[in-house]
Amino acid sequence: MSLPLSSGQTLYQQLADSFAESIHQGTLKPGKRLPAIRRVAQSHQVSVNTVLNAWQILEDRGLIEARPQSGYYVRGVMPAVTRPVKPLPAKINDPSTQKLELIEQVFAAQNNADYTNISLACPQDGTFYPAARLGRITSGILRHNPDIIGRYALPPGSERLREEIARRSLHNGINLTAQEITLTHGCMEALQLALRAVTKPGDCIGLESPTYFFLFPLLASLGLKALEIPTDPQQGLSLDALEMLLQEKRIQALIAMPGAQNPLGYVMPLENKKRLAKLVSTYHVPMLEDGLYDELQFDWPLSPPVKAFDSDGWVIYCTSFTKTVAPDFRVGWTAAGRFHQTIARLKAVSSMSESRLLCETLAEFLASGGYDHHLRSLRRRYAANLDAARGIMARHFPQGTRATLPKGGFVFWVELPGKVDTVEMFHRLLQEQICVTPGALYTLSDRYKHALRLSCCYPFDERYTWALKRTGALACEITGLAPGQDQGLPLRPQVV
Amino acid sequence: MSLPLSSGQTLYQQLADSFAESIHQGTLKPGKRLPAIRRVAQSHQVSVNTVLNAWQILEDRGLIEARPQSGYYVRGVMPAVTRPVKPLPAKINDPSTQKLELIEQVFAAQNNADYTNISLACPQDGTFYPAARLGRITSGILRHNPDIIGRYALPPGSERLREEIARRSLHNGINLTAQEITLTHGCMEALQLALRAVTKPGDCIGLESPTYFFLFPLLASLGLKALEIPTDPQQGLSLDALEMLLQEKRIQALIAMPGAQNPLGYVMPLENKKRLAKLVSTYHVPMLEDGLYDELQFDWPLSPPVKAFDSDGWVIYCTSFTKTVAPDFRVGWTAAGRFHQTIARLKAVSSMSESRLLCETLAEFLASGGYDHHLRSLRRRYAANLDAARGIMARHFPQGTRATLPKGGFVFWVELPGKVDTVEMFHRLLQEQICVTPGALYTLSDRYKHALRLSCCYPFDERYTWALKRTGALACEITGLAPGQDQGLPLRPQVV
Repeated sequence: MSLPLSSGQTLYQQLADSFAESIHQGTLKPGKRLPAIRRVAQSHQVSVNTVLNAWQILEDRGLIEARPQSGYYVRGVMPAVTRPVKPLPAKINDPSTQKLELIEQVFAAQNNADYTNISLACPQDGTFYPAARLGRITSGILRHNPDIIGRYALPPGSERLREEIARRSLHNGINLTAQEITLTHGCMEALQLALRAVTKPGDCIGLESPTYFFLFPLLASLGLKALEIPTDPQQGLSLDALEMLLQEKRIQALIAMPGAQNPLGYVMPLENKKRLAKLVSTYHVPMLEDGLYDELQFDWPLSPPVKAFDSDGWVIYCTSFTKTVAPDFRVGWTAAGRFHQTIARLKAVSSMSESRLLCETLAEFLASGGYDHHLRSLRRRYAANLDAARGIMARHFPQGTRATLPKGGFVFWVELPGKVDTVEMFHRLLQEQICVTPGALYTLSDRYKHALRLSCCYPFDERYTWALKRTGALACEITGLAPGQDQGLPLRPQVV
Repeated sequence: MSLPLSSGQTLYQQLADSFAESIHQGTLKPGKRLPAIRRVAQSHQVSVNTVLNAWQILEDRGLIEARPQSGYYVRGVMPAVTRPVKPLPAKINDPSTQKLELIEQVFAAQNNADYTNISLACPQDGTFYPAARLGRITSGILRHNPDIIGRYALPPGSERLREEIARRSLHNGINLTAQEITLTHGCMEALQLALRAVTKPGDCIGLESPTYFFLFPLLASLGLKALEIPTDPQQGLSLDALEMLLQEKRIQALIAMPGAQNPLGYVMPLENKKRLAKLVSTYHVPMLEDGLYDELQFDWPLSPPVKAFDSDGWVIYCTSFTKTVAPDFRVGWTAAGRFHQTIARLKAVSSMSESRLLCETLAEFLASGGYDHHLRSLRRRYAANLDAARGIMARHFPQGTRATLPKGGFVFWVELPGKVDTVEMFHRLLQEQICVTPGALYTLSDRYKHALRLSCCYPFDERYTWALKRTGALACEITGLAPGQDQGLPLRPQVV
């Protein structure tokens, strides 16, 4: 992982990131001693203090540890998730299943301040977001244009925001005009509208596996079948499997998240993205590209989305500002290529338009140039949180636990060893007011019964780390396996 | 029409409303002299000045006129729309019809400040709404809770707003708890979700005729057929016709707007509402009650919605704060009875939730008690605008023009005499930068080719009145008929 070497980042942060990448890539292996501080200072042309500060960051992230009179060592990090996966027969799932009830229990726990949530992908750490800045912009708009609340925003909605989106998209390799963009109520509505635009009941939709859990009830609500396609935790969707399905006309649309996928955190290699764009165009099968985490990729420059290679309008790019800048606003958008007019009309009859007050706030923020700076610091914090969480898990989760190495975003996927049912774990942890999401939610099959999705979009405080350690301890208890490096389980700290 | 005799209304306003009602009911006929001022003062136990002020209001509304040395006379007001109507065979309409293009032209004109819009039901007079007050509440929330923008609002969304809605609903005769309410992205999303919850493609939906024009493309987008049911301009939906359709199992759901319907402005009599509630419950056919204008009824106390008589959960009440208090926010809600859980889940997978910032702003406004005061003044202004517009039309539209007598809201329905195609009128007026909506949009048949819907939610200024007069003049030109009372057409005024 190499973070942007921007002016906003200090020398020691850059150094820490560079070593973190070597650890993740396996160049520096667990148990190995780090080079001597003076030598690093010399080879990197920095001061000894800079190296010490960088080591401090790596220690905080749980990647290295100091051993007295000996130096710094790479800590045990968990092996990455790898596996061969097979496609599953398409299924229509019942929207009134136990899974929806599970999701509702998760939401209820999240809404209850007494619960510690370490799983949902719903940013709750207000301090991560430029909330105060956005709030000042909103208040300023209200001061200068007090009537804005009393006027009705008709489709297609804020031109200024659509222009800012088009301008920014150029940086991500997408060539768009404001007229090709439809504003939506978050990414979820963009996906919903896109599905309604390109499918009919009974159609079969190709999905990654594991995939975002809300796609299953969404598909079910539209009478659509789901077909889970093999997905590699590092490379993403198997394009060979996809091509076979396309040849056999077994799917009528595809949903994928090639930039920092939820829940695996993979970023699809560029060559694969190009091939994917070509495939959907060749077979005339619309692809819904969920770009929700695209701007939270850790690598810099950002890898462009599949949409950047869409020559023929078959890729419907769907995204939102929900995870990047204003979780509360729920302002999303779609650039739907050949389906633009259909989706714009569907948006109008389905929920009309978005609040101009919120759209103008975002437009002003984007125009002010604060967005890139904010994204840089957000990526850095999430990357650091993920490292730190992985460090804790390496010491407290059962030996043999595997976890993904996310290339962006703030969620990761954990697979536990031995016989363990994470739905049962979920219920037991709920009694202790800890909320995780079981792997069963991410498939219609039973292949992820031993998996958990965890998330780092919460204040990374004692309460969070306690909940993470407690989850690991319970996993050890259930599996009968010892933790990676047993350091004992702390008592629950005071709620902060 | 009798406006609320509340402490917020002055004596002369009450007196004006009372006489306006007599004029609308025909007790005081056009051309008749009003009783002498001194006599009215005596009989109503008010001062002469109070009567003079009341007469001034009636004159401003175009209901009466002063004749020198003679006194005050009731002006010619247009006859109300009445007609026998027949049900039409159910149709599936094509979402890509000319009608959608017409609607888009209307929207484009509305979004262009150079055009004068006298037709859409989209409040644009910011001064009608408590925008400044709401803006202060929003800014206050941002000041005290700056992190609110950085946090994700999960379903079911703001409990405080749902509690306030439940509290207020009691006044309207609906017994609800916060747990039975689903927040939506405006009323449009509430209707969309409700349709998706209770129908399947191919089903047939009963509609009023004329009905809200966006229902046709909404139904088409869901593969639903529309069956237009006879609707009386004063009494509303024909319940006899409805019962026949229910007996014959020809409709699988019903959408109606019994409280101040768009576009007719009728309010269904209470006995009919009770019968309607019983009908849908007896035949187990869900009714989507669109209550968007319920709180803008002119009569006081408000007539309760059909939902108030829904003993068995078959009525899905859908409404929004869009037309009453905050057009920009697009915060709506539904109380869906037996379909509550289905719709709440559908909302979550379709667009997740509403902005907490906007919901908390509304909740605080509702809790502060300012809402009722605002509604009173809004009703009064819309009622006065409608009267004034009808007065202008009586003098400038062709003899024989009929217009509805709205019992609430801010739109009315106009039927022109003779052979006139209002779609053609629409295009001709668009060239003069005046925007009206042709009757053709409000039906799948050709029965409203001679009708227009007009609206009074715009600043009632010279520009608006000029556009209204110009529309009348064009109608006279096309029909070859003289205006009701020819007073000449003014030149276009300076844009204000």
